[in-house]
Formats: sequence, structure tokens, C-alpha cells
Amino acid sequence: MPAIPIQQIQEARDRIRDHVLYTPLIRSETLSKLTGVDLTLKYENQQFTAAFKERGAVNKLLLMSPDERTQGVVAASAGNHAQGIARHAGLLQIPIRIVMPKYTPNNKVENTKALGVEVDLVGDRFDESMQFARELAISTGRTLVHPFDDLDVIAGQGTLGIEILEQDPSIETVIVPIGGGGLICGVVSAVKQIKPDVRVLGVQVDTFNTAYAMFYDLPPTEKRTAMTIAEGMAVKRPGEITGPMMKELLDDIVEVSEEEIERAIFTLLEVKKTVVEGAGAAPLAALFRHAHLTKGRTALLVTGGNIEMMVLANVIERGLVRSKRLIRLRALVADVPGSLAKLTQHLGKLDSNIVDITHQRKLHTSTLGAQPIDVLIHLCGEEQADHVVEQLRAEGYEVNVLVN
Amino acid sequence: MPAIPIQQIQEARDRIRDHVLYTPLIRSETLSKLTGVDLTLKYENQQFTAAFKERGAVNKLLLMSPDERTQGVVAASAGNHAQGIARHAGLLQIPIRIVMPKYTPNNKVENTKALGVEVDLVGDRFDESMQFARELAISTGRTLVHPFDDLDVIAGQGTLGIEILEQDPSIETVIVPIGGGGLICGVVSAVKQIKPDVRVLGVQVDTFNTAYAMFYDLPPTEKRTAMTIAEGMAVKRPGEITGPMMKELLDDIVEVSEEEIERAIFTLLEVKKTVVEGAGAAPLAALFRHAHLTKGRTALLVTGGNIEMMVLANVIERGLVRSKRLIRLRALVADVPGSLAKLTQHLGKLDSNIVDITHQRKLHTSTLGAQPIDVLIHLCGEEQADHVVEQLRAEGYEVNVLVN
Repeated sequence: MPAIPIQQIQEARDRIRDHVLYTPLIRSETLSKLTGVDLTLKYENQQFTAAFKERGAVNKLLLMSPDERTQGVVAASAGNHAQGIARHAGLLQIPIRIVMPKYTPNNKVENTKALGVEVDLVGDRFDESMQFARELAISTGRTLVHPFDDLDVIAGQGTLGIEILEQDPSIETVIVPIGGGGLICGVVSAVKQIKPDVRVLGVQVDTFNTAYAMFYDLPPTEKRTAMTIAEGMAVKRPGEITGPMMKELLDDIVEVSEEEIERAIFTLLEVKKTVVEGAGAAPLAALFRHAHLTKGRTALLVTGGNIEMMVLANVIERGLVRSKRLIRLRALVADVPGSLAKLTQHLGKLDSNIVDITHQRKLHTSTLGAQPIDVLIHLCGEEQADHVVEQLRAEGYEVNVLVN
Repeated sequence: MPAIPIQQIQEARDRIRDHVLYTPLIRSETLSKLTGVDLTLKYENQQFTAAFKERGAVNKLLLMSPDERTQGVVAASAGNHAQGIARHAGLLQIPIRIVMPKYTPNNKVENTKALGVEVDLVGDRFDESMQFARELAISTGRTLVHPFDDLDVIAGQGTLGIEILEQDPSIETVIVPIGGGGLICGVVSAVKQIKPDVRVLGVQVDTFNTAYAMFYDLPPTEKRTAMTIAEGMAVKRPGEITGPMMKELLDDIVEVSEEEIERAIFTLLEVKKTVVEGAGAAPLAALFRHAHLTKGRTALLVTGGNIEMMVLANVIERGLVRSKRLIRLRALVADVPGSLAKLTQHLGKLDSNIVDITHQRKLHTSTLGAQPIDVLIHLCGEEQADHVVEQLRAEGYEVNVLVN
């Protein structure tokens, strides 16, 4: 499958210019040091719906004829595509129906309805919703806007490739997450025609790796129950357009783990002060293991920032645990009044902040006269954590670090 | 006290141009709707040390003579000023000593030392550290770089005023947090000389409100034990330069509460996908109560992003509680096997995600045959929260929402 012609992407750029944000591209000195790669970030999470999907969606909508616009559009999505197309269909006054799988969390359904959109909850899995959307499009005369397997949508996403090279012509590598492949096909099409020697790397999460398998002619490993924090990358297989196009045009595809994605979300939050969803963190995650695959100045496509606040709070806490800034200790203390006061006094002197403390007398296996106390403490990292444990032991406490 | 001459600020701008980042200014449609004010944000939290302080510090350093540079500098700070000046002294190879109060958290001391800086821990309070820094400067022949009460530092911060009006000439109001007043004095000096009719509003947190009191000729309310999440605003009193300058040049100063600052941090995280510290959130917080004081398009100075990850996780969780996306229910259940299963089944059907659950048999005041179960659930907001409580009551449960 050949690249989308650059003219088509340039036209898309002119077409959507007043409809989407020209997002910042900013170099990161700290992440460059951390990864050993000269890094710059394209903040597509600053887009209005906090994701790049608007580009493809609005390009498609603007290409529709007046008649088609009057008929309206249909899309199947429970994520950023739904938000992106709903926003621009609304602004362009094009009637829209969105099909979401039945199990879609209530808040996503409500958020979409709040944009004035009709929502149909159909299908146990995304494939079934998509099938219903297809049928609905045919039976109602509406235009189906596929989230990735559509040349106009791909051309819209490709505008990111043009922008990145325009903002920093010295870029030599671009790293892009792969869900259905629409984004990366657009970007690689643009980039390779503007500057053929720029490397384009795709990233998949190892729980949804069919594009990776296809790229390397490996048997696909379909995991029906697979889950990922990177919802935007949880696509079962590449499209009929995007699959062959990725195989032909990409320089490489790498896999990342869930843990690497979590670490990347945490790092971007702490170092770059920016909120990213799983897919948006995947390009940085890729560098934790595959930095050698880049050359020269490298742009990371931070694709979106739609992560639930509750999930984000969990990622932060897990990040603190991982970096030993939160540790849970179990200390045995004598079962006499004043023991707890003494232990907490020691912890205070060691500059460790107690977050919670549990003193559970029932059901444990220590000596009857000794009581285990579990205490969660906040520290500044591994060095201090080791120091606290050592010091408590020096004071005669039997102390263990519990695995969180 | 007259404004800093605009020439001096323009010269500062040219001087520091290659040393600091030209941070993005981006309009926010959603926050504009939320507050009823046409809003645009200056993302100074994207600066290398994640705060604006670099501007004033590097301007000061670049103005020093070769001899003065060889002698080195001294600064007193446990926060963004320390990071900012340490970075640029390091890059310019100027020897630097930083004085921090004795109680400064270990991690801040370590982070600063990691930049290759000598740190002196002196003084119980910031005033005492500053006094020591002053004496140290005299005894060692080093230059003291005051965090705010210095004309060159103020001129450096003022470059933000020039940038904002350059990035969007239609701005009619600028909102700036006040700590010592260096930032706002620089900004108001620049803005009023470029476009005298632009309003400049200062924001203080009501626990540290001496600039507010001075502006309105109210008696100062010194609160020795006051705490605030906005560390950057926890300054006891304005400077000898900044105090009179604020009084003369500002259009108004408003107060915000701790709760408003927390809400603003949460909102910027969820809506704008950006991490801000307390001071950086204060301008948005000001709009929750004082939106009527703005006119026309309004720029919020998002001054910095240095907030501890542990604090951020807490702010998120408190934000979820505030918006009823996390609620703790106490339900009474019959003290027979299977009761808990039945309750959790009901909760599952109501699309509410159980975060934790406690079943404490001791110490409660209910009937002996009934057991209270406390369950923390994750929902999508007030409407669902009310629905869940109603439905459980309809099932015959005695349910109370616990105040978190």
C-alpha cells in the first residue's frame, strides 16, 4: 500500500488549519538526559478534546458534500474518536450518531451525550459496534467515519507529520503509538515524502501487538481477555488500509509493557508537568528499552491526555511505590502501652512522613507478646528508604518491607 | 515607587532570550465556558525548572561584572528561586551557595545539591536564612540575589509581560499570583507601559495576605502557624521595593482560599492536562469568586509546576471526593453469611466501582444483629451518587454518606 500523497496531506493541513490547534513542540533537556536521546515532544494532548483524533475527523467532515453533510454521519467509538468527531460535527452542524459497545462506562456515554450527540449502545465488543455502525450508515444514508481505516482520516492525522518537521526541521526520528494505525500511517506518509531519511518508529503495547506481529511476520497472539491502561492502543487488528501501509512504510515497530507505560505516564507528569493517557506515554515508554533504534533528534508524539483522574491518582501512587518514595513497613513492637508512640517517634526523627498505619491484632503469626504494626511512609527515595529500615533495625525493631 | 522602565525590561528580554524558554500561551475554550471569562494561559510551568524564577535570576547573573561573577553569588530559598538560580549559575559557571531553612525537606536539599550547589542549612524561619545569606554575601564578597526585592530580578520577571502581549495583543486583563511581589511588579511594569489600559490583578492566598492588607490599608493579620499548599505564595510580607510598587501600579488584589486553590489545581489537571503548583493555580482560583473584576480576554499566569507527586495524588483524590466521584457509604447489613455478597452485587449492578471496603465489627452503635459496612466507591459524579444511595435504600438498606 503506497503512502498517502503529500499533496493530499498538505491540502488537509490547509483545510483543518482553523479548526484544530497548532500544538507546541518543545525540547526536553531532562528527558534527553534520562533517555540518552535528544528529545522533543509534540503536545497533542493540548488539542481541545485532548487528543489528535480531531484532525482526521474534521478533515473527513470538511470533505463531505453539502448533501452528505445534511444526511449526517455515524461513528463507532467509546474514546477519543467519538469526542473528536462529535465536537466538529457539532461545530459544523452535521447530524451525528455514535455507536458505543454496551459495556462502555456510564460517564463516557454521558459525556458524549452532553455534546448533543445521539448514542447507540450496541455490541458486546467493539467489532460488533462497528458492524452495527456500518449497517446503520447504509440503512440511513449517513456517512460512516471510520476511526482509522479511511484515507481522508489518515490524511488528517498526517498533518502532524508536516507540523513536526516545520516546527523543528532537525528532527531525524519520530515515534508514534499504534492503535488502528491511522495516525502513524498519516505521519509516515507525510514525513517520508518531505524528508525520506527521517526514521518513523511505531509502538504497540505487548497485550495488543497484532501490528508488531504482522510487521515481523509472526503469528498473531490474540488475547481475548487482554487489558491495557492504554485504551487507545487496545485495537484487535490493523485496518485493511493501515496494515499494509505500516508494513511498507515504517522503519520499525517495537513493543512496550504495561509497566513501562505506567512509568512513562508518571515521568511525563513529574518531569514535564503534563497529563498523558497510556497511548500518549507509549513513545517515551519505548525509549526505556529501545533507545538504540532512534537516530538524531527524536520527536515523541504525545497523542492525548484523556486519562481518568482516579486512574491517574493510582498511577502516581504506584510510581511513588516503584521509586521507593512510598514504602510499607511491618515492624514488630512489644504489646505494651507506649510502643506505638516510640515507633512513630523514631520514624519522625528519620524525616519519614506517616501516610497510614494499621495495627491489626487478630490473625497473625508472630509471638503473642509482640504485635505487628504496618506503616505506610512517604520518603524521598530508595536511599532514604534503606536508611530508615537500617536505623529501625539498629534500634532493635524487627522490620520488613512489605511488597505493595 | 515608579514602574521599572520598559527599556530595562526590553533589554532584559534580549539578554535572557537564549537562556529561557519562550513558553506557549494557549486559549482555553473549556475554562472560558467554565468561568465566563475569555481565558488564555501562559504555561510558565513548561520552563526548564518548571517555574518562572529563572527569568529574574538569569537576568541578574548576566548583569554582573566579570569580577562579581568570579566572586560568586548567594541566595536564600528552599523553592523555585533556588532551582532557577542554581541552574543558570551552573550554566554560566558562577560559584553559588544557597541558604535554606533548617526544616527544609531532605529531598529539596538533595535535589539542589545534585545540581552541584553548596547548601547551608541555617535558620528556623526563612527570615533567618535570608539574614544569614546577607551576612554571608558581605563576609565573602559574593553577590546576594534576592528572590524578589531586586530591580534586576523584577525586570527579568517582567519579560513575561512583554511576551504575553506579544503572543496575544488582544489581552485586556492579566492575573498574577503574589508571593514576594517580584513577578507581579515586573509584569505590571511591562504591561502598563506597553498598553496602559490592560488591567493587572494580583492574587494572594488568604493565609498569607499582607500585600492584600497593604493594598487596602487594612491591619496585617500575621498568622505565625499559617500553612498553604501554595508554598510559593507563603511570603510573610512584600519587599521594600515590591510593596510600594504593587500599591502604586496594580489595579486590584484579591484573596483566594486553600480550597479554591486545590479546586484550581484539579481543574487544570483534568481539563488542561497540565500540572501546576499552588501558586500556579491561584489565578484560576481567583476567577471562581472574582470573575467580575476582569475585562475582556484574560491571561492567567501559570507560574510553575513544582508540586510533590504525593501532594498531587492527594489533591486528585480530594477533588474526586468534592465532585462526588468518590464517596464513602456506610450501609447496615444483617449479621448473617452472604450479606456482604448481596451488597456488593447491588453496587456492581449500579455501575459503581468499589475502591475499598471495611467491615469493622467492634465499636459501633448499631443494633447487635446488624453490622455496618463502609465502602468507598468510584462513580461519575453527583447524579450517580444520589442514584446509588436511593437505589440501595429502595432495596431496604439503611445507608449514610460519610463525610470524607
